[in-house]
This record gives sequence, structure tokens and C-alpha cells, in this order.
Amino acid sequence: MEENNSNIMRLRRLGIETHTEKIIFMRADSPVCRSEGFTANTRVSVNYGSQSIIATLNVITSELIEHGEAVLSEEAFNKLGATEGDLITVTHIQPILSFSEVRAKMFGKKFNESAIQRIISDVTKGLYSKIEIAAFVTVCSGDNLALDEVIYLTKAMINSGSTLEWDEPMIIDKHCVGGLPGNRTTPIIVPIIAAAGLIIPKTSSRAITSPAGTADAIETMTPVNLSLEQIKDVVRQEGGCMTWGGAVKLSPVDDVIISVEKALDVDSAGQMIASVLSKKAAAGSTHVVIDIPVGETAKVRSKEEAFLLEYYLRAVGLSIGVGVEVMITDGTQPVGRGIGPALEAMDVLSVLRNEPDAPTDLKDRAVQLAGLMLEVAGAAPKGRGTDRALGILESGQALDKFYRICEAQGGFREPVPAAIQHDVLAMTSGVVQAIDNRKLAKVGKLAGAPKSAGAGIHFKAPIGKYVKQGEPLFTIYAASQGELSYALNFLHSSTQIVQLAAL
Amino acid sequence: MEENNSNIMRLRRLGIETHTEKIIFMRADSPVCRSEGFTANTRVSVNYGSQSIIATLNVITSELIEHGEAVLSEEAFNKLGATEGDLITVTHIQPILSFSEVRAKMFGKKFNESAIQRIISDVTKGLYSKIEIAAFVTVCSGDNLALDEVIYLTKAMINSGSTLEWDEPMIIDKHCVGGLPGNRTTPIIVPIIAAAGLIIPKTSSRAITSPAGTADAIETMTPVNLSLEQIKDVVRQEGGCMTWGGAVKLSPVDDVIISVEKALDVDSAGQMIASVLSKKAAAGSTHVVIDIPVGETAKVRSKEEAFLLEYYLRAVGLSIGVGVEVMITDGTQPVGRGIGPALEAMDVLSVLRNEPDAPTDLKDRAVQLAGLMLEVAGAAPKGRGTDRALGILESGQALDKFYRICEAQGGFREPVPAAIQHDVLAMTSGVVQAIDNRKLAKVGKLAGAPKSAGAGIHFKAPIGKYVKQGEPLFTIYAASQGELSYALNFLHSSTQIVQLAAL
Repeated sequence: MEENNSNIMRLRRLGIETHTEKIIFMRADSPVCRSEGFTANTRVSVNYGSQSIIATLNVITSELIEHGEAVLSEEAFNKLGATEGDLITVTHIQPILSFSEVRAKMFGKKFNESAIQRIISDVTKGLYSKIEIAAFVTVCSGDNLALDEVIYLTKAMINSGSTLEWDEPMIIDKHCVGGLPGNRTTPIIVPIIAAAGLIIPKTSSRAITSPAGTADAIETMTPVNLSLEQIKDVVRQEGGCMTWGGAVKLSPVDDVIISVEKALDVDSAGQMIASVLSKKAAAGSTHVVIDIPVGETAKVRSKEEAFLLEYYLRAVGLSIGVGVEVMITDGTQPVGRGIGPALEAMDVLSVLRNEPDAPTDLKDRAVQLAGLMLEVAGAAPKGRGTDRALGILESGQALDKFYRICEAQGGFREPVPAAIQHDVLAMTSGVVQAIDNRKLAKVGKLAGAPKSAGAGIHFKAPIGKYVKQGEPLFTIYAASQGELSYALNFLHSSTQIVQLAAL
Repeated sequence: MEENNSNIMRLRRLGIETHTEKIIFMRADSPVCRSEGFTANTRVSVNYGSQSIIATLNVITSELIEHGEAVLSEEAFNKLGATEGDLITVTHIQPILSFSEVRAKMFGKKFNESAIQRIISDVTKGLYSKIEIAAFVTVCSGDNLALDEVIYLTKAMINSGSTLEWDEPMIIDKHCVGGLPGNRTTPIIVPIIAAAGLIIPKTSSRAITSPAGTADAIETMTPVNLSLEQIKDVVRQEGGCMTWGGAVKLSPVDDVIISVEKALDVDSAGQMIASVLSKKAAAGSTHVVIDIPVGETAKVRSKEEAFLLEYYLRAVGLSIGVGVEVMITDGTQPVGRGIGPALEAMDVLSVLRNEPDAPTDLKDRAVQLAGLMLEVAGAAPKGRGTDRALGILESGQALDKFYRICEAQGGFREPVPAAIQHDVLAMTSGVVQAIDNRKLAKVGKLAGAPKSAGAGIHFKAPIGKYVKQGEPLFTIYAASQGELSYALNFLHSSTQIVQLAAL
């Protein structure tokens, strides 16, 4: 199509934030809307020099903007690299051919390698609208992806971004398949492994459906938004790092997909495997230990499910050249006492500092995982890894290494819990029988976690504990009264989270 | 939660059109954003008197609006019934509990009756975001709904809106399972049936994935946005009507779902059956004849698929008390010559006017369907319906009734084709072997149909016709050069739409 002069418009900035959505505002009576037939919600191509993005059109029927002007949302300004006063053109978008593969999948056709590559490439380029991504997430959800589809997806996600290369022959990493509140072993394991002289360039994700991701928790203690160059410097200096994967372009498409999964509060086995292993492969890892907590209200509910996941992880790992070891752990209750970024970080610090009241479950789990990693890396004989990890932790070497990594990442700070607190009390006396982790996570999220880093839950009633009537089961932390009320409303309208049985 | 005075804001109107999306714009530094933790893209409840809607938040970081002001998109103003200067409050939304059923369906759980009722009720209330509706549409797509789920969905959709009641014991209706360009039999059948003295309160839909829906085509000849009261008046007076179903509240949730299906360019058998039969039941129909065109590039591709669909339609009809008869027809090529609202309407008029060059395929199909309807209604003996229908058409009674119905609906006008025309020529001579209906429909859509009522295609090369090199296969009609170029770009990048074989 010939470029048309009437398509040229001058940008105006009105400071409109729309999260990751790219919006363009134009007058309904503008020549481009009239000649091209654009109306509200049309997806259009916005072109600035050699850059172009796809944006959703909102039309203005008032005199808010002048003739010849167009307004972009802040996200669109940033993506284009344009500023107020710059000239843009607005044109039709090409049909997104790869979406026909998503449509075919809805009708039961399997993805082939080329289909997934084209879809992931188009999502990476920002061509998919949110609802198109929602449809893709949905067709990949549950057990709708077969092993070969997961392998294609993993490879496509590795190819969607940058990769890290290392001189060392062995790069070790770990990952936890979430779903268990408070299970924040990473900032304990990384310093243990690095103190043992191994290389562990750990990048973590932010929360998908939980009240805190590992990156959210670590961010309350040290900066996590490091570039690839900064990560290399930190790892070269200290042997390990603890950063946010989304800040670098390792499998960048993952974050786009995750933002939709988050809005739908859903994630799927196939996508999770591809997400995890693509990030590990892109980070240059050669060996990965994966923690799968199993429990009725954890993400993985049964041992059978965990075994199947282990099979998928190993098989996909094999096909992309990453050695995978799995540790199946107890997922029946929260690990540690904090749920939410700052509250979890406080647990981590008390373990690293060998405080007498540090949560032993968190400590035990971190040391076991670190032990397996040491064994996998040949840094401890079979069966002796846990002992070696415990030695490094209890000698203070791990704490020392933790502070050094934090300093290298930009400095250490103490995490700060939210100001407003509310105790949830036991209505009767009894022994804790079971805990609904999903509902507990939901209360933490409604209280504001992870957006409010200090918000969340301090949990006080582990399974087997005898609790007296009127004693606190847990404390809710919130940054605003509105969020506290919201969490309490859910609590009152919902069935018991902590089940007690009379003695 | 206590209502908080800092939540009260004064509305300002800036004329921002966002189609069906409801948006609220507030300052990032407003007390409500800060105290409630609202950020860009938060879904919030906007309350005005006893009315409330859910809207998506865009935050403003400039001085575009004053402290204490909030701006709504036009759709949000309309839904709330508020005007500039009115006071609103903004609060957290309750979690949408029914969405957990959609999530469970992703993981393979079947919907039960209560789950579907709650989902449809929440979608009807506007609680679902677009991406949540996209996930619902996707889990219902393909053959993912079993018969009982389709029955639940149909009943839930009937209950979601108004219903029409009639004094007559027999109300007859028809429907075509789309996918075949130009198959516009409704405005021919309705006057034939009404002229025969039967009652046919026909409501039609607008295009989902096609270049024109029946309502779009009829609208180029007469108003179709009639209220329930107006429909009753027209039918009382003339025995039949031809209106847009979306203008009345018969199964209103259908239009919300369809707008997402349209953006995804997908529809599913289960949802289609529920959509069709819920509208028929809500309109008070006792008997429905359903036309299923079958062809490789039609919506239904094989006879087997059509037989299965017939089974579903009959079984669901039985469970909701509507008698269903199916006619399986030829879907290998377009019916009539026009594709697009006005161009299809012109075909309809030439049949009704008994013009010598009227498209015989359209005429034959309309008369056969009308004939079956007359037989079903007992207005013609078995095997004599077609003859009676033909008699009513050729005598001019149908045309007379058509004009009377149009007059009752607000007046008749001639449809007007778009101004810009472009002939697509045969590159070689040969006999037409096959036609790709999907691609043909796509060209019509890219040319602007149905949004531009005059845009579309005039088709000139039916299967079996001998076409000489350089003769036109079809003519593209467009309202703007941009849209014409867009259609031509697709044409050039795509494989042949009309396949010719040398003699």
C-alpha cells in the first residue's frame, strides 16, 4: 500500500498509563480514520521512523486533541522510543497468519514445530492482542500439550530472546514448581552453591498466581533488575547471582504470556515446563535441580502428577541438552512463616543468620536441595551433599556470600513488613489437621501481595500444632485499610483455611 | 467494606470511544488510587446511585484532569446512565467465583448446569473482562462441549434475557448455519411465509466471521434495530418481521460472546447451537427449520459433520421444547452473486422482483426452505411446500408482503453499493473447478464488509462456467482506497481463490 500523507500525525503526550496495553487515541473525524475506516478498537500499525508497533485505537469525539494530533499511551511511547511532537503514520495491520494455528488447535489439531515457532515469534513481536494471547494460553492449558508440542514450545521460547554463554563447562541451577506459599529456598541455596565454588547464575520470576515470586522476595533485600552484562559481572565476581529473569531478554515472550496467565489466574503444565526450561537453557545452565512440592492444595496435587511432570521435565531437558534432576517434596503446608515478598525475605535472613528461632522446615529444604545440587555437580559424594551444604550454611560462609552477592547487585537492605496488621484467631481449640494453601495464598494476594511488598501473611499454625481458642492462626499484613478489608471479606465468605480437630 | 469519602469523584466527559470496553481514567495521585492500591489495568467497580459497572482503570500521570475528577469512556457513561458532573465512587470488585469453573474446564472437568448458569449470569452482568471471555470461548470451542453442556448453555442463555410470548399456537422460524457467502434467503423466506398466513417473528444476527450477517444485509433496505414492542406491532400487523436480534434483549449474552468470537475469528459448534436455539426459544418459536450448507470451505465441511450437528440441534431442541427440522444443502460455492450487505440485498430484491436475471441458485434455495417450513407448519401437504412457496413468490405476493413489512419496520430504501470497484481477472482461460469460500469471505472483509455496508464482492464465476483469460472472476467493492489495497494485498499474497481447469 502506498504511504499516504494524510496518515502523518503529530504525537501528543497526556501521561496515560495502560499497563502493557498499547493504545493510540485519534479524533473520529481525522482523515486517517475516515479514509481507512478505522473505528474504536481497530488494531492498527503505528509507525515511527523504522520502528513500528501494533496498538488498539480509541477514538475521541471531543475537542480534547487538535486536528492532526494523536496521543499514545505511555507504554506505546516507550516501545516506539518516540517523544511528544514526533511524527508518526498509522496504517492497517497485516492479518496475523500464525493465529490460524491457534484456531486449529481449538479444533483439536496438534501444533507442529513451525506452527509454534511462528506463534511465539509473532507474540514476541507484540502482534497478538491480549484476547488472542488468552486464547493461546487456554489451548495450551491443562494437559492439552503433548510432549513434542512442549519441546517445540521450549525451543521456540529459547529462540525468542538472548542467550548467555559461559566459559565454565558446568553451570548449575535450581527451580521450584510453585504453588507452595513461602517456599523461598533460592536466596539460601544460591550463596551455599556459590560458596562451594560452583557457578550459579540464578534468574527468578515474579509471582504468576502466588502472593510472591522469588524475584519479588529478593527485591525487598537487593536490586534484581540487572542487565545481562551486570549479571555476568556479578557471577564472574561472586560465582552466583539472584536476579529477575524478566529484566534480561532471556525467553522474553514468557513474561507476555505470564501477564495473561496472571489475569486468568491459570497456568498449565506444558507452558510451565517450557517456561522453566527455556529460561534455564537460555541462561546457559547445563544442570538443573527441580523441586516439586506435592500436596492436595499445592500446584501439584499427587505423586502421580509429580512423576508425570518429572518425566516431561527430563524428556524436554534431554532434547534441549539440559540435565534435569527432580526432588519431590512435602507440599501439604506453607514453608517458613512468611507469605508475601518482605515476610518471606525475613524468613530467609533468619535462616542465613542461623537465628535460634529460624524456621527449620525452610532451612531443611534449602539444605537438601543444595545438597542434591552439590552431588549433581560432583562437589560432594552421593549421599554427602546435605552435610556439606549444612556445613556451609552453619559456618556463616553462606551469609557472608549472600551479603557479597547483594553488594555486587547494588547493595543490601532489610525487608520492611506492611504497617497494618490483623490477627486471625482460632474459634475453637484443637490440633491443626490441614491447611488450604490456595485460599491462604488468595488471602495474601487480596491483602496486596506482591504489589505491596510488605503485605501478606505471617503463618503461625503448622500441621500438628495444638492451638488454643483465641490464639492467632495467622496475621494479615496490609499497606491499606481497603486491602485489609478485602482480604477479611474473602475470609468471612469462605470455608475454613486452617482445619482444627479437638484433642 | 465501609464506604470512604475519598472515593467520591466528579465525572468529566472527554468523548473517548472504546467500543464495548468500559474504561475509567483517574489520576495516579488520587486518594482512591493510593489508598486502595489501584494501578493501571486494575478492574474496579464504578458506582453511581444504585447502578454500578465494572471498568478497567487507566491512570493519568499528567494534569489532563483535575484532582477529584474521573473520566469514563462513552460506553461506561452510557451503561451507568451518568452525565458530566455526576458523582461516583470507585471500589474494589469482588472476585468472580464462576471463573474458577472456566479454569476447571481448561483442566478437563465438564461443566455442570449450575456452573454454566453462574458463568452466563456473570458474563451477562458484565463482570467478565475480554480476556476472561476469550478463555471461556476457547474452552467451549471445537468439540469441547458435550451434549448436556450444550443443553445447559442453551438454557442459561435463554434465561439471560427477555422472552417473547405469542397468542398463536405455532410460531415458525428458520436459521442458516453460516459460512457460505451470499446465502441470504431470510428476506425472501419471511415474506413468503407471512404471505401464506403464518407467523414468523424473525430476528437475525450481524456478521460473526463473515462479510455480512443477515441483519447487516437487511439493514441496507430497512431499519432492523426494533424494540420488542415494535417487533410485536410489526408481526401483529404483517405476520412477520426481519430485525436484528441484538437490538432486543433475547439472549443478550450472545452478543458479548460473539464480539470476542469475532475478534478471534472463531466459533464453535456447541456455542453456535446454544446461540441459535436460545434465540429461537426466547423469541417464542415452536418450530425451526435449519439450513446447513456443506462444502469443503463452508463452515460445515462434510456430510458426517452435518449429520452430527443435526443430531445435536434436534436433541437440544427436544430438551427446550422447540421442534427442529434440518435441510442439508450445497455449500461448495457462494449463493447468489453479491457478498457484503448491500450487494447481497441487491440479489434478494432481484429474486423478489422476479427479474429475468435474478440468481436462480438463491431463488431455488429460498423456495425449498420456505417449502419445508410450510410443510412443517401444515400449510402445505408433504412434498408440495416448494410449489406453494414458488407460487407465492412468482405471483408477486411475496414482494408485496416484503414492502409492507419494510414499511412497518420504518420504511424501504434501495441498497447502495460502494463507489470504488476493482475487477479481478482470470489469468488463464478454463472451466471453474472449485472456489475457496473462506478466502473469498476474507477478501470481502478486508474490502470493508460488513462495516462498510456497500463493500464486498460481486461474484461472476460459478463452478462449471467457462471463463476466458482476461474476463472478470469477481469485482471487489470498497468505500476507501486503503481498504481496496488491503484486500488486493491479501489476494496477491494468497493462493488461487477460483480454480480453473483448461478445457
